[in-house]
Amino acid sequence: MSPKPAHFNLFLHGAGHHKAAWRAPDSSADQLADLGWYEEIARIAERGLLDAVFLADGQSISITGVEDGPMWHFEPLTLLTALSRATERIGLVSTVSATFYAPFHAARLLASLDRISGGRLGWNVVTSMFDAEAQNHGMEAMPPHAVRYGRAEEFVDVVTRLLDSWPEDSLVVERDGRYVDGSRLAPLEHVGEHFAVRGPLNVPRPPQGRPVLFQAGSSEQGRDLAARRAEAIYAVAYDLAAGQEYRSDVRARIAAAGRDPDSVAVMPGLVTYVGSTMAEAREKQAALDELLPVEDSLRQLAVFTQQDTSDWELDAPVPELPPLEAFTGPQGRYATILRIIESERPTVRQLLGRLAAGGGHCTMVGTPESVADEIERWLDRGGADGFNLMPPALPASLEGFVDQVVPELQRRGRFRTAYEATTLRGYLGLEVPEPVRAPSSPSSAR
Amino acid sequence: MSPKPAHFNLFLHGAGHHKAAWRAPDSSADQLADLGWYEEIARIAERGLLDAVFLADGQSISITGVEDGPMWHFEPLTLLTALSRATERIGLVSTVSATFYAPFHAARLLASLDRISGGRLGWNVVTSMFDAEAQNHGMEAMPPHAVRYGRAEEFVDVVTRLLDSWPEDSLVVERDGRYVDGSRLAPLEHVGEHFAVRGPLNVPRPPQGRPVLFQAGSSEQGRDLAARRAEAIYAVAYDLAAGQEYRSDVRARIAAAGRDPDSVAVMPGLVTYVGSTMAEAREKQAALDELLPVEDSLRQLAVFTQQDTSDWELDAPVPELPPLEAFTGPQGRYATILRIIESERPTVRQLLGRLAAGGGHCTMVGTPESVADEIERWLDRGGADGFNLMPPALPASLEGFVDQVVPELQRRGRFRTAYEATTLRGYLGLEVPEPVRAPSSPSSAR
Repeated sequence: MSPKPAHFNLFLHGAGHHKAAWRAPDSSADQLADLGWYEEIARIAERGLLDAVFLADGQSISITGVEDGPMWHFEPLTLLTALSRATERIGLVSTVSATFYAPFHAARLLASLDRISGGRLGWNVVTSMFDAEAQNHGMEAMPPHAVRYGRAEEFVDVVTRLLDSWPEDSLVVERDGRYVDGSRLAPLEHVGEHFAVRGPLNVPRPPQGRPVLFQAGSSEQGRDLAARRAEAIYAVAYDLAAGQEYRSDVRARIAAAGRDPDSVAVMPGLVTYVGSTMAEAREKQAALDELLPVEDSLRQLAVFTQQDTSDWELDAPVPELPPLEAFTGPQGRYATILRIIESERPTVRQLLGRLAAGGGHCTMVGTPESVADEIERWLDRGGADGFNLMPPALPASLEGFVDQVVPELQRRGRFRTAYEATTLRGYLGLEVPEPVRAPSSPSSAR
Repeated sequence: MSPKPAHFNLFLHGAGHHKAAWRAPDSSADQLADLGWYEEIARIAERGLLDAVFLADGQSISITGVEDGPMWHFEPLTLLTALSRATERIGLVSTVSATFYAPFHAARLLASLDRISGGRLGWNVVTSMFDAEAQNHGMEAMPPHAVRYGRAEEFVDVVTRLLDSWPEDSLVVERDGRYVDGSRLAPLEHVGEHFAVRGPLNVPRPPQGRPVLFQAGSSEQGRDLAARRAEAIYAVAYDLAAGQEYRSDVRARIAAAGRDPDSVAVMPGLVTYVGSTMAEAREKQAALDELLPVEDSLRQLAVFTQQDTSDWELDAPVPELPPLEAFTGPQGRYATILRIIESERPTVRQLLGRLAAGGGHCTMVGTPESVADEIERWLDRGGADGFNLMPPALPASLEGFVDQVVPELQRRGRFRTAYEATTLRGYLGLEVPEPVRAPSSPSSAR
């Protein structure tokens, strides 16, 4: 059996995923309002034969403040539509909030963009998290976690059925008869807890049938929703052990849901610093870390750790911290901090840098060969089916990956040497799904 | 004083605005799912230096049924985003439903597309009308007219303030300091009857400040909303007298609202059949009319007129109909039918053709010179500031206008000979509006 090839998305964000990347003298910070810059980045990713460009999204300005770096200059569906015209093959994945989007709007935008892009679209369904987002959509605060996941499950179901409701074979175009065979349309007549949608959709089913459904759940409910519905998964895994734990857990859930785990690529986030020597790679990392405004970062670290950090020395090791059980703030980030300290023994400045680039995501620092080694180890030991690349600085870190790591993986037979299909489904080995017809509604056009 | 130049949009719809256009053997009916076809049409409109491509929208399949012709294959905002990449100068106007869109989503999509297009966007705000649309958005039926207009007014206000809430001068990009000056952001803290939106928007203000606001109200409330807010108006005017009545009424309302009527272009819909002789133009019209499926059309006419049309002879004059006062069905369309009969004395087939192409909109049939004469008459006698072109067949009728009528108008000094600006605001002589700051919220970033 030939070794398993990898999948890679470019998670495109600001001037790069390192929070201080925009502060570099030669950074892209001044170009982030220019579409041409995003087109250039997407073309680099396509030159590297990556599976897709992946965009996050949110419904408010940054909740940590707008002053310390770029968030968004474009809405993701319109930006990806534009990028679909500047590229020919690469997939395009947009985050869509199940908490705030009406399913009819979402289905229509997705169907339209899948058609415009010739079948290259994916949608990453999320439940939004922040009250600041709720307050832009008529609510005072976020609904509880369980309600958001209930809504997300119904949202995915309704959008899916809307996408199925106008099959392309209904477009008969009989010039002396009917344009559409209305009897083939399948209204939903959906009345659920969160949505009431009659259907059918008012645009025909797109080339991929449905855009590829990404999901990124880490909670119990999130993992179960992913197991039932996701066609690809964006995960958070700090190291190989965490990747293995997550992937084997979610694969078991996928199998329990009656689906084939091998059909669902699990793709953790990955930050890479690549140099021709390990020293050069470390220099690149250090150069970004040194751009961090130290006082602000230390103040933030004081909040994250509930410690007085004011007398911590930047280039000394991080002082010992209390165990997780003794911590009374949000557990997730504190657990990550403890893990970074335990495994990397960083200086204070290095810890700030790690938190500023990818946070709890995996970071690989090294030569093209050593990074390719690490990637192979993740693939072969069940930690990942590929990665959602989070370049710390754009375009430089992406170019480093595309021009140095990709050729190394290609030499080893672990990555495609040409796009072997024309749709995102094709790249991920997924079939176009058969439309699910609503059982209760055999007809018809209105 | 030099004569007033005209404005023209291309109202892009299906294979053309004549309902039977898709039935012609050489029609575009098979290409309507292909983006390339729309790109070709938009480029023809740009070759003709038209102000904008204009798209309608609706939130359900055609309420008259999907069998008798194409409606939509794309969602308008994504389609216009794609068209912005296939053109360089022409404006792009999308219809947006105030009844169904959340203002935060709408503002963000509009700001993003205005930026992507380099300042070429317009938005045509409508209140949706049909229960079939409401049923795709969680309602059982449409809200009453007054509620829809109340919502539309608040929607325009909130979207406008969202577009103003993140002025571009707040992007300071100080590499050793702040990326955004948060003190320049202006949250709305809006709590109204229909919406509660805190703001600010999470993308910066776009090149035009706000996309150009089109409106198309004919009711009292619609005219008043247009008078207070619209920057351009899409109107329905069957003939010059109707155009004059509408335009002078709406200009008086604009003045009463404290605005300059000369700044708001009133653009009625216009169907043109152009030939090198009048006979050739009439042949083009007859050729489309003859494609109408007669039995269906007669059946529809029976509903519209409440008459038994089954023994009407197609090529005989329309039999006399009861006066408007005696009619118990929907008045608007019946009034149009009576007006067409009175002014054109059509045969039954000609009446069916008129109703099938543009309905109550103005139709001009003739040579480039005679059509240009008519257009000049409308401009000079206060019937219009330009027209929303509704080509009966695409691309042929559009090419006829662009290649024959446009040069004639240019020779007469009544139409631009080059784009004299780079934004839709520029073509329409509109300034970029100053941002309105929310009075209650002097700060700040979250």
